[in-house]
Amino acid sequence: MSSVIDAIEAKKRGGKLPDALIAAVVEGYTSGDVPDYQMAALLMAIRLVGLDYDETVALTRTMADSGPRYSFPDCVDKHSTGGVGDKVTLCALPVVAACGVPVAKLSGRGLGITGGTIDKLEAIPGFGVALTEAQFRRQVEEVGFALGEAGELAPADKAIYALRDTTGTVDSMPLIGSSIVSKKVATGAGHLIYDVKAGSGAFMQTLDDARELAQLLVKLSEALGINARAIITDMDTALGAAVGNALEVRESVAFLRGETVPGDLDEVCRDVAAELLELRGIDDPRARVDAAIADGSAYAKLEDVVRAQGGDVEALGDLPVAEVAAEVTAPRAGVVGALDALGIARASLALGAGRQKKGDALDFGAGVVQLVRPGDTVEAGQPVVRLHGSRGVAEAVGHAEGALTLTDEAVAPRPHVLERL
Amino acid sequence: MSSVIDAIEAKKRGGKLPDALIAAVVEGYTSGDVPDYQMAALLMAIRLVGLDYDETVALTRTMADSGPRYSFPDCVDKHSTGGVGDKVTLCALPVVAACGVPVAKLSGRGLGITGGTIDKLEAIPGFGVALTEAQFRRQVEEVGFALGEAGELAPADKAIYALRDTTGTVDSMPLIGSSIVSKKVATGAGHLIYDVKAGSGAFMQTLDDARELAQLLVKLSEALGINARAIITDMDTALGAAVGNALEVRESVAFLRGETVPGDLDEVCRDVAAELLELRGIDDPRARVDAAIADGSAYAKLEDVVRAQGGDVEALGDLPVAEVAAEVTAPRAGVVGALDALGIARASLALGAGRQKKGDALDFGAGVVQLVRPGDTVEAGQPVVRLHGSRGVAEAVGHAEGALTLTDEAVAPRPHVLERL
Repeated sequence: MSSVIDAIEAKKRGGKLPDALIAAVVEGYTSGDVPDYQMAALLMAIRLVGLDYDETVALTRTMADSGPRYSFPDCVDKHSTGGVGDKVTLCALPVVAACGVPVAKLSGRGLGITGGTIDKLEAIPGFGVALTEAQFRRQVEEVGFALGEAGELAPADKAIYALRDTTGTVDSMPLIGSSIVSKKVATGAGHLIYDVKAGSGAFMQTLDDARELAQLLVKLSEALGINARAIITDMDTALGAAVGNALEVRESVAFLRGETVPGDLDEVCRDVAAELLELRGIDDPRARVDAAIADGSAYAKLEDVVRAQGGDVEALGDLPVAEVAAEVTAPRAGVVGALDALGIARASLALGAGRQKKGDALDFGAGVVQLVRPGDTVEAGQPVVRLHGSRGVAEAVGHAEGALTLTDEAVAPRPHVLERL
Repeated sequence: MSSVIDAIEAKKRGGKLPDALIAAVVEGYTSGDVPDYQMAALLMAIRLVGLDYDETVALTRTMADSGPRYSFPDCVDKHSTGGVGDKVTLCALPVVAACGVPVAKLSGRGLGITGGTIDKLEAIPGFGVALTEAQFRRQVEEVGFALGEAGELAPADKAIYALRDTTGTVDSMPLIGSSIVSKKVATGAGHLIYDVKAGSGAFMQTLDDARELAQLLVKLSEALGINARAIITDMDTALGAAVGNALEVRESVAFLRGETVPGDLDEVCRDVAAELLELRGIDDPRARVDAAIADGSAYAKLEDVVRAQGGDVEALGDLPVAEVAAEVTAPRAGVVGALDALGIARASLALGAGRQKKGDALDFGAGVVQLVRPGDTVEAGQPVVRLHGSRGVAEAVGHAEGALTLTDEAVAPRPHVLERL
């Protein structure tokens, strides 16, 4: 009997898969010996029966080992589980690098409501994300910061994820955890912060689920040699004001130049940067973060990276955005109770800032700007959301209108960083 | 979202699949629009979460409707869930037809330890099993009995079964039940006995599982317009003495000629025949069965069928069997506690009487003859099993030796028909 049949039979009966069996199945699937339909049956059995911690570690290790493994033990890295308006990588990592801590960061593209850092970087004219390992390593050494596309790492995870995406087996905690950590282990940075998003615009909709995933990510990472922490941040509301590729780069530039940005973005980005410095044992990390932004070194580091990767530094400060297609206004006076991240994400997607399916072309200039936050008082007719773009405007307006909830009571400010692990 | 994704998402969360969704998925899979890997994920979700009765009826109906549907409302049919030495079709159905009740019977080939009636028929020189619907119908009308291969009926079941066989999703009660009944509904006989085997040589190893399946088969059949009953028969020991294609035809001929055959075979076959007559409302069915065997009309009916389907009637009474390759003897004096059906089946398979995998060539003359039954007293060195064939003899001897359990205590006779539903 083949390894995958052994694994299916054991797992469907609630059994535990030995490490060697997990390795044989993953290697078989990656090499093409195990067909999609058998792997799909196994993944559904895992979705329904689960994997225990030991099995999850074995799966993570095997997927990390399925392609090249980089090694950057002195570098830091961060990972977000995906949110709306999530430009924390662009904001926090230049600060960390400016403080002298090297950053080795590989990112992905967006799909559905979730944006991807690679797409945001490609909104910068000329910016190249396809770095070889040698180029990536040289840039980490010379600039102290490189941002590449996680193409060739953990190919087993890539293949398994593509299958999960079409077989209803994405929503499994051990499969999610092993997928994320396998790529991080393959990237090889020694120190890592997980930014686990919780809320309507995140994959983890509840704080309990987010906490469970955060704990798993840290535990798996530590088991595989990474010095890791996690924070859980709010994603009931999109982060900052801007959602959309060029719009988010502009907002990131504003943050790094010390200009005024929404408080949630400022808090989360300074926190992530400080946590990363602390992980590397830097004293007084928050003061270092504030100083790097105030003295211009953080923005200068972003410019260094853009220059090193072929991007147009002159354009960076003022990327073109699409024309304003519509503004959504408050239908009456009141207090903003919610500006739902999922609705805003759908509006942005409709405008062409994201992909409905793999391979869709993006409008880098399209997106949404949130003009109010939960707790703000608004007048009747006051603009609350501005939409940039030329496609799907009517649909986007509908999503944005649906995202707004007005109330007549005061709305208590909610913390943006919900928990630290 | 496609129908299969809708079905996967609903089922993995424990939801109920609407009839129209089940139909759309099955039609999509049969037409090739639903890929194997998505169907495999759905089947595993069904294996682990289950289908309720309404869903199982809908699946059965959809699979029955996936190809041509025959209609033989006055005919009887029987179905065995598969056993070792199971020649009940060959023994009981000629009796029923000889009593004037028409029989429309489609059968399959054997795989693994389970034999198939089609293989047994092909041990008769010239016998053809590939009948068109018109040929099958004409023979039912003219001879009162036709035995064909269930080739074109319920193609959805055929496709889904092939996928289940390679994805660990065979062992699901609703999938087993719907698979069996869909083919029976498509065959269209109005009256049906299910012979559900229970024991080491059957798919249902326990009486509880066999009862659950028997109840489901009857309930599904009645829901889809078939007048059905079930009996549960023992399969801890292979039925009769002979296991192997020509050997089983010879034993069936002996039964139909009223010659002495093992008591279990005699009891089960006369019972099944009488139940089928009773289902059709024939008075005094057991006496009719006994008379048809005693007066030669039952064997004459088998000859009619063999002749009608091109088989050599002269050869029928004395089919060639392979040479005796070995005899397994009792290692000591004692009482036969068990002659395990699974071990005997493996011995027969090793000798080439069955298929390890689809497409394997059979040795029609190969097989096993059981010379003793549980409860028999044996001397040291007394032959207990005779092996016919030329391949895999050493392996077969090992399996046959392992099948024998000797005891020093009296062994109470076990009933062969365990329950009637």
